[in-house]
Amino acid sequence: MIATIVGTGLIGGSLAISLKEKGIANWIIGVDQNESNLQKAKELQIIDEGASLEDAMQRSELIILAIPVDALLKVMPSILDSAASNHVIMDVGSTKEKILQLVAGHPKRGRFVAAHPMAGTEYSGPEAAIRNLFAQKTMVLCDVKNSDEDALEVIENMVDKLQMRLVYMNAVEHDLHTAYVSHISHITSFALALTVLEKEKEQGRIFELASGGFESTVRLAKSSPDMWVPIFKHNRNNVLDVLEEHIHQLQQMKQLLEDEDYDTFYKLIQKSNKIKKILK
Amino acid sequence: MIATIVGTGLIGGSLAISLKEKGIANWIIGVDQNESNLQKAKELQIIDEGASLEDAMQRSELIILAIPVDALLKVMPSILDSAASNHVIMDVGSTKEKILQLVAGHPKRGRFVAAHPMAGTEYSGPEAAIRNLFAQKTMVLCDVKNSDEDALEVIENMVDKLQMRLVYMNAVEHDLHTAYVSHISHITSFALALTVLEKEKEQGRIFELASGGFESTVRLAKSSPDMWVPIFKHNRNNVLDVLEEHIHQLQQMKQLLEDEDYDTFYKLIQKSNKIKKILK
Repeated sequence: MIATIVGTGLIGGSLAISLKEKGIANWIIGVDQNESNLQKAKELQIIDEGASLEDAMQRSELIILAIPVDALLKVMPSILDSAASNHVIMDVGSTKEKILQLVAGHPKRGRFVAAHPMAGTEYSGPEAAIRNLFAQKTMVLCDVKNSDEDALEVIENMVDKLQMRLVYMNAVEHDLHTAYVSHISHITSFALALTVLEKEKEQGRIFELASGGFESTVRLAKSSPDMWVPIFKHNRNNVLDVLEEHIHQLQQMKQLLEDEDYDTFYKLIQKSNKIKKILK
Repeated sequence: MIATIVGTGLIGGSLAISLKEKGIANWIIGVDQNESNLQKAKELQIIDEGASLEDAMQRSELIILAIPVDALLKVMPSILDSAASNHVIMDVGSTKEKILQLVAGHPKRGRFVAAHPMAGTEYSGPEAAIRNLFAQKTMVLCDVKNSDEDALEVIENMVDKLQMRLVYMNAVEHDLHTAYVSHISHITSFALALTVLEKEKEQGRIFELASGGFESTVRLAKSSPDMWVPIFKHNRNNVLDVLEEHIHQLQQMKQLLEDEDYDTFYKLIQKSNKIKKILK
């Protein structure tokens, strides 16, 4: 099968590598409006060739859109318009409601499978692409009842070969849950980085002491605004909701420290320890 | 050399392993008021024998106190009282002002070297002890001008053999900087865990989507309240100061989302990306 990857960054590039390695595709066409990324992806042998979207679509069956969610909204209508009946189009976006609202009722809606691989790193660009990014991770497929059966089968088959766990959700659930387990983590990391950078300006020397714990909590703050601002924009209501809860929790801790109520503080930490049962 | 480790948990146990491996000590006596921890440490061959503090002090030169900072304050006076002139006593606590205030002016103050290895994990107990926890990490020594030269030399020699980077600070600086790069990271992780656990109760299914990014930001929330509540208590003012700044940053992000001011939001994320220059 010939596959087209639109957006040869971290996710698109990593998918390209895995599609080849797992024998899902034998030829990868890369499409990227960033010429230098496309060139790099070719040099790194992540893609076999670069092409225009039109040319690539004419020659491939599977088209994977791995671009920021705002760019996705822009290109999706014309991609669906020109889709042939054997095309399978999949996205990898971190928000789902807006894109699925946009394509609802499109005559070729069935060719589209809305997907979100719960995998990534804080890096971006083709150089960030890595092997086996997806194995043992979760792939969420959204509102699959609106995808054609044969298109869905192609994607489910791919997910299986990528050794991913498959989860089905509707778009509303998806956007709510990703706000809780992914989007808020990024917000707290960005805010924590800003906090210590601000304090560093006043105090200096802070980072001499930075250790693994600090690195762990702020590493997501290296993430690209090009990817994340559109996500926060699309998922604004859910993100605001969980952000409010998070600020509330921090204010509660602050109050307990101010009141020197260490017994309640202890109980709160014990409660938060329950996260152990969730994480491996 | 015979070394005594008081507190055979993650840090004490890992130190015991390294002291042996690096040829710093050839016999390790463990002291722990938790009998079952002491037993486990012996079974795991982290320590050579368990003993009472009095017995251990009589037979060893180096005494490392790896216990929560509140427990440290309690035992320190009597340990210094009974210290001989060849004893070297080191702590590993995450806060330094209170302990150094406590021992200031003690006739045997010089035998004490206040240390803080910037290393650890979110786990605790002797089973959590790991080899090579300290290599390439930073060891902070505080107010070393008040330690005897020969005692300091023993510790500096140990730090060198552990392949750690050495940083000297005064206690006030230390407590300020650890609030920024360590203590606040724990607060945000605890609060983030509470946030999603709260939402999980309402919504269910959230954790099906938990991925690496989430795990990274909440892993510190597995940390023990027995260790952390005393740290927050000792470093209350600094922690409150940085917590206030952090809440302010989150509120700013919330306001920008409410106002849909995505341009400013973009710039904030770009600014937070500067953390790249700090982290490897």
